[in-house]
Amino acid sequence: MPCVGASAFVGSAVCACARLRCPPPTAYEKALLSVAELSDGVRLACQIALPLAGDADEVEIPAESWSAGQRTHLTGQEAPLHRSSALAWTDLNAQPPLPDDPRADWERLGPGVAALLPPSPAALAQLPGLLRQHGWRVRLIHQGGRAMTCLPPDQAPLGLAVDLGTTSLAAYLVNLETGQTLAAQGAANPQAPYGADVIARIAASMQQARLGARLQAMLSQRLQDLAVALCAAAGAAPGEVVAATIVGNTAMHHLWLGLPVAHLGTAPYVPVISRALTVPAAALGLHLAPGAEVYHPPSVAGFVGGDHLAMLLAVDILAQPSPVLALDIGTNTEITLRVGERLLCCSAASGPAFEGAEITHGMQASAGAIERVTWAGHGLVWADHRRLTATGVVWGLACWTCWGTLLEQGHLTPTGAFMPGTLGHPKAAFEVVPAAHSSHGRAITLSRRDISAVQLAKGAIRAGIKLLLEAANLQEHDLASVILAGAFGNYLTVEHAVAIGLLPPLPLVRFRQVGNAAGMGAKRLLLSNAERSAVEALSTRLEYLELTTHPDFADRFSQAILLASDPWD
Amino acid sequence: MPCVGASAFVGSAVCACARLRCPPPTAYEKALLSVAELSDGVRLACQIALPLAGDADEVEIPAESWSAGQRTHLTGQEAPLHRSSALAWTDLNAQPPLPDDPRADWERLGPGVAALLPPSPAALAQLPGLLRQHGWRVRLIHQGGRAMTCLPPDQAPLGLAVDLGTTSLAAYLVNLETGQTLAAQGAANPQAPYGADVIARIAASMQQARLGARLQAMLSQRLQDLAVALCAAAGAAPGEVVAATIVGNTAMHHLWLGLPVAHLGTAPYVPVISRALTVPAAALGLHLAPGAEVYHPPSVAGFVGGDHLAMLLAVDILAQPSPVLALDIGTNTEITLRVGERLLCCSAASGPAFEGAEITHGMQASAGAIERVTWAGHGLVWADHRRLTATGVVWGLACWTCWGTLLEQGHLTPTGAFMPGTLGHPKAAFEVVPAAHSSHGRAITLSRRDISAVQLAKGAIRAGIKLLLEAANLQEHDLASVILAGAFGNYLTVEHAVAIGLLPPLPLVRFRQVGNAAGMGAKRLLLSNAERSAVEALSTRLEYLELTTHPDFADRFSQAILLASDPWD
Repeated sequence: MPCVGASAFVGSAVCACARLRCPPPTAYEKALLSVAELSDGVRLACQIALPLAGDADEVEIPAESWSAGQRTHLTGQEAPLHRSSALAWTDLNAQPPLPDDPRADWERLGPGVAALLPPSPAALAQLPGLLRQHGWRVRLIHQGGRAMTCLPPDQAPLGLAVDLGTTSLAAYLVNLETGQTLAAQGAANPQAPYGADVIARIAASMQQARLGARLQAMLSQRLQDLAVALCAAAGAAPGEVVAATIVGNTAMHHLWLGLPVAHLGTAPYVPVISRALTVPAAALGLHLAPGAEVYHPPSVAGFVGGDHLAMLLAVDILAQPSPVLALDIGTNTEITLRVGERLLCCSAASGPAFEGAEITHGMQASAGAIERVTWAGHGLVWADHRRLTATGVVWGLACWTCWGTLLEQGHLTPTGAFMPGTLGHPKAAFEVVPAAHSSHGRAITLSRRDISAVQLAKGAIRAGIKLLLEAANLQEHDLASVILAGAFGNYLTVEHAVAIGLLPPLPLVRFRQVGNAAGMGAKRLLLSNAERSAVEALSTRLEYLELTTHPDFADRFSQAILLASDPWD
Repeated sequence: MPCVGASAFVGSAVCACARLRCPPPTAYEKALLSVAELSDGVRLACQIALPLAGDADEVEIPAESWSAGQRTHLTGQEAPLHRSSALAWTDLNAQPPLPDDPRADWERLGPGVAALLPPSPAALAQLPGLLRQHGWRVRLIHQGGRAMTCLPPDQAPLGLAVDLGTTSLAAYLVNLETGQTLAAQGAANPQAPYGADVIARIAASMQQARLGARLQAMLSQRLQDLAVALCAAAGAAPGEVVAATIVGNTAMHHLWLGLPVAHLGTAPYVPVISRALTVPAAALGLHLAPGAEVYHPPSVAGFVGGDHLAMLLAVDILAQPSPVLALDIGTNTEITLRVGERLLCCSAASGPAFEGAEITHGMQASAGAIERVTWAGHGLVWADHRRLTATGVVWGLACWTCWGTLLEQGHLTPTGAFMPGTLGHPKAAFEVVPAAHSSHGRAITLSRRDISAVQLAKGAIRAGIKLLLEAANLQEHDLASVILAGAFGNYLTVEHAVAIGLLPPLPLVRFRQVGNAAGMGAKRLLLSNAERSAVEALSTRLEYLELTTHPDFADRFSQAILLASDPWD
């Protein structure tokens, strides 16, 4: 029975390991995995000796496992996607040249084409070859009265949708004819070494002349690599990709487009431009089909970008029962509250702790990262064991908090301090995985500083939620639903996030985890003009609440950092 | 009295030398120059010792002389040019950001700007700096509802007009506000080593993979160098150049835009596209103002390009008394006949002989090239003496023909053959400048092969004229006027061109030499949308006559190569 498991990218019953076809479960796996998981064939890679050469028949590693790389969250709750309305295409039969008909190739495509603005020279350059190789037939891709590029007749045009995160990128290859996602892949944002969060990256750009161009080029190369890999996975070529949509927060949007970010780094955080932008892919260093353009949705403010709008679009925020809260938790957490016709939003500087940075043994969600720590009897059980992920931090904190272990037993206070004399590393750190059980022979620990990082992050988010509700004269318990988007929002167990006070104490049924909704939104924007109009209309309706200068922020934040489900008590 | 002479670029009484302020004329100059020329201060550089250091006060070389380099024909009969209607600009006052007004820079330019499509990211990137350096004021350049770029407030936008010839380039820097030409400069087309005429260059492109990209890059670099030099001459910077217009024959247009030329090289000579194209300068490797675009007028056929249309526009062909013939004589000679409402055109493969190539001692028109050879008594007198120019060839031939020297004396036959036993180099070559008088100590000769090259060139042109007239049921003497454009058309003495049969034997008053009308047309297209519409309308009205497959071409051509003013006799 193949060990397909739950998708490596979906939900909470997840194994971070490469997916394997493998022998029966070990006792260790039986202890750690549920009956349902085991019957689904879920296995833990750490329990399986990798095959030696010649043993390949025994353990088969499906090809898709190799593409996991870094575990960026790639799936969202996907509504059906339909054939593109953003682009149109027409199969044309041209008249072959005759001695008395020396018209140009473009002009012989027929009178309908004469009304179109011609494509770029690079796209035109393909036309003579295509016409002559395909019996004077060609598929012309056009959009709003402008020709974009040409493909062999009957060939399905492809599109690239990218969620450009501060820490990681998620890219999708989409068949624009069917709306089908052909391949998905994540990668680290190569700009990360120049600043883990947007503020650090903006500061770096301001300090170094010409760093902006370098950061743009690095990102462009990484996206090109992703496009090549996605196409290879789908048996296609980058030259078949005729359109792209890239969503990101405002700072990532600016760095990607080569726009100066200096004024995003100081109050009142003024972007260069907010409205939607369509830019030739080639001008950004992306080598897709010649003439391909990249659509960027608008942004709302310096710290609420097109990725958040794409998320609001994907979750259909206007159709949800009101009041509804939608959060995209990441290095920057954007929060929107819809109350009737009103849309209020803010941005909380949650920092990269949730993505593994600023945590002693933190790492991003990759195969091998600790995915869960559960309390069984009087000991901890951990799944996989290399380094503690941010997700693991929350899980651990949540376990201790809600199951009355560390807190109940007095090892940890609601302020995040360890009580002296307990659990191995008093005051300094708590041992999650003892050295004897660690793959690298060193203990994996959780320090006071680690807990602080998570407290600051969750405090900023909770304060943002509180202030949005106050601006609408609402209480937390008034919320009809809370939509959690983003990789972290999908990985976390809501009850634990509620327990440590990251999320308001609402009935669990009111929470909905929707996965990478920004990526989903990017795909919708890639496919549909109506969705582009919708997101552009939405951008003008959002009222932005600046937290950094809000008179009540400091007060709410100081309460919200407490490890308690209701810090306002 | 300054030796301003006739312009170094205009008319027949021309000295190829740098223009000098100089001492009284020598006896040599008195012998060679007319009284009118001498009284105008015309001098020959060969008669003036260049000053040593310290002698600068004695001989002053006006700055414009240094820009001549290669003598591309830069001036045309210039109608007044008016402020640009192709581009518009608006000086805007933006509201500075306030704590409660964090709108993006673009959005704070005001509601009028909201209706414009924003410029490219590269142009947007300049906006924050400009606004903050100029007290929140900026000049926005826009066109047809699209913003192109931004400049400091009140700064005059500049434009670049280029006549892209097979052999040479002529570039003009224009103030778009006043229509004034600020600087003009010529240069060799750097692609020339890859083929002296368009057919050779097309063949080279087809034989070498990737040569197309290299040819494009070479041209782009040369044009960039020209733009930098023109801006330096005008005290401006390339970043102030917000628009460009480039006109060229269809092959040059394709090579410049990176379009494949394979099908231009074989019948029926199908271009990739004929209609007008506007392309971002940056996509062509030109670094002008970010967001600057290059307008390319349409072409008519594989060998009648936008340069010819620009010429027809500049000479206002529709307003001339009909029937009128307009020729742009160059490596390729385009000819248009207007008869009432009808416009007929063709292209004659005249080859580069007129530009100095394929001639034993030929060189392009540069300072020092032989400009004229006259017959005085029983000997030849030449002006300047380095190598025989194509212009010199025609002058020489014309002199002999019309003044009854070589032909009358039986040294040369109407078929172009030397008679044996005459003039130094029987059969092989005729000595124009004896070795004793040559600056490099070797005789400058005119060979049978040289005369053949000129015969083939002028034969193709004359046959083209004849066939156009036949298509309109006209005789040569029906022509009300003949407009001669291009460097060669301007340098030649019409009576000599008529004498050897290059042009029809009409009264001299019917000929008009208009200089670089294509360059003039490029400037008009740079400045005016009405002119762009006019040239685009004109392109659809021209009836193209293909000479290479015309059933009567061989017959007319075989007659037209005779050295006689009326070869049809």
